[in-house]
Amino acid sequence: MVAADDPESFFATAPPLGDADAVAARLRDFIARNSQSSADGDRRIVCVTSGGTTVPLEQRCVRYIDNFSSGHRGAASTEYFLKAGYAVIFVHRRGSCQPYCRFLPDNSFLKFFDVDAESKVQVAESHATMVMNAIGDYCKAIDGDSLLKLPFTTIFEYLQLLKIVATSISSVGPRGMFYLAAAVSDFYVPWDSMSKHKIQSAGGPLDMRLSQVPKMLSLLRNQWAPLAFCISFKLETDSDILIQKADMALNKYKMNAVVANLLATYKEEVIIVTNKERSTIRKINRDEDLEEQMIKILSHNHLKYICGNTDGCNQSPD
Amino acid sequence: MVAADDPESFFATAPPLGDADAVAARLRDFIARNSQSSADGDRRIVCVTSGGTTVPLEQRCVRYIDNFSSGHRGAASTEYFLKAGYAVIFVHRRGSCQPYCRFLPDNSFLKFFDVDAESKVQVAESHATMVMNAIGDYCKAIDGDSLLKLPFTTIFEYLQLLKIVATSISSVGPRGMFYLAAAVSDFYVPWDSMSKHKIQSAGGPLDMRLSQVPKMLSLLRNQWAPLAFCISFKLETDSDILIQKADMALNKYKMNAVVANLLATYKEEVIIVTNKERSTIRKINRDEDLEEQMIKILSHNHLKYICGNTDGCNQSPD
Repeated sequence: MVAADDPESFFATAPPLGDADAVAARLRDFIARNSQSSADGDRRIVCVTSGGTTVPLEQRCVRYIDNFSSGHRGAASTEYFLKAGYAVIFVHRRGSCQPYCRFLPDNSFLKFFDVDAESKVQVAESHATMVMNAIGDYCKAIDGDSLLKLPFTTIFEYLQLLKIVATSISSVGPRGMFYLAAAVSDFYVPWDSMSKHKIQSAGGPLDMRLSQVPKMLSLLRNQWAPLAFCISFKLETDSDILIQKADMALNKYKMNAVVANLLATYKEEVIIVTNKERSTIRKINRDEDLEEQMIKILSHNHLKYICGNTDGCNQSPD
Repeated sequence: MVAADDPESFFATAPPLGDADAVAARLRDFIARNSQSSADGDRRIVCVTSGGTTVPLEQRCVRYIDNFSSGHRGAASTEYFLKAGYAVIFVHRRGSCQPYCRFLPDNSFLKFFDVDAESKVQVAESHATMVMNAIGDYCKAIDGDSLLKLPFTTIFEYLQLLKIVATSISSVGPRGMFYLAAAVSDFYVPWDSMSKHKIQSAGGPLDMRLSQVPKMLSLLRNQWAPLAFCISFKLETDSDILIQKADMALNKYKMNAVVANLLATYKEEVIIVTNKERSTIRKINRDEDLEEQMIKILSHNHLKYICGNTDGCNQSPD
């Protein structure tokens, strides 16, 4: 019997993705349309993963374990990757923050609108510019066919989706990038061991044994997309172990870069760790997006990587 | 040492609600403003609870257990309670479905807008009427001071909030109602036993022992708001035990009504169980809200209850 934390065993027992073939076909087409050479050189393609995965605790799922993750980082990063000329495959948690909708207020959606003198509904003056810019950028991405959005909810859906996307992206070699910002569950309940019905609460304390989710980064790096530029994320709560964990991920999984951040300060500061250096990036002013600096650096590193991997490199890192 | 599932022990060890006093003051004022007699009789006040509670697994919370619950039932019910003349205290999960925002599309927010010939942002024709009605109703509720919204996220926040609200509502006796649609966690990790930092995944399988959340319905019924009309909810995945669980809740906790539903069909069908009868309510057509029928029945039952509890009853059940 295969060890519980073996990737093969995970995929063999996971409830299959309903629309795997359709998704694979959409990906093939998307990548093909974004692989036609142009005057600017070949378009780069990034898979941005965003939001948290859930771990169902019952097959007829009422309860599940979730990860604190709004998806804001992934959504904002997607906007800057698109601006930098990438085609983006946005693998995101259903319902999480979306690119170009980051201004959407949680509770006060209705304050967004005014009813004017003729009883016509309008966007309130104060919000109009922001909304208009967002619509403009969003339409550009859709018209330019540079944004493909694929949703997931559970850890089972996420890892199967990641595998399909990676296998598709491998066809573009070093032009492909993975920006793995999703908060992926470390522990899960294998489908076979899961309670079929809602766990009843009359029976005293509840003991749960959660298996480790197999580490997929090695599979991604070695098998699925061996030439891609891979960026993983590390979020910790304890500053004493952050850099050590980031270095470990870099070396153990042969990542090209690791974005390291602390729960307490992730909105204001990240550290980008590569084999060559550690760059601390901080917000300079309140309205700035940290992701703007981050994507500038990572895009630059990706271009250097592509040149290092391609004869007669036709893309300037600047 | 007090048993782990004792309510006293739960409240003693829970991290305290930061703004408990401010919330209590807002409630007192809200209830006072809604307790001035009018030609229609004294206004009834309902506490609607909505959305799921979370169970943090670490003190610096990265992972938590959540309940599948959009909050749509609670949000829709709030709209119909307001229509029926109630003042509503909407105790809801942060980020969950809000009254009058139920039409808000998840992913396609930007499809909501058009940019017109003069580059002005407008709500798309197709959505304008819906938005306008929603704004109208929302403004009425705000102007009429009949809607108070109080958010929670964790099981600790929720139960402390419920206690404060119940204690305030008890001042209006039988005019008060509880409509407990929130999906409340049955199991939790007591704050003291909780890991301080993010649980590390290098150490093999994870064993968790979760304590039972103390049943608060008895406290609500017997101590906090003894005269209120109380409606609890039962959601099950197994139809064989649904009615039995509903009857048990009715009798054990002396609820005035239990709304019973199955995970597979809760959007189309509920059963309202009282001491006297079981009424199955089904959607008649696709565009209908089940909550419209539900609130009609429950409001009627509440009026009969008030008359049964008040001399010289001045409110007609019809």
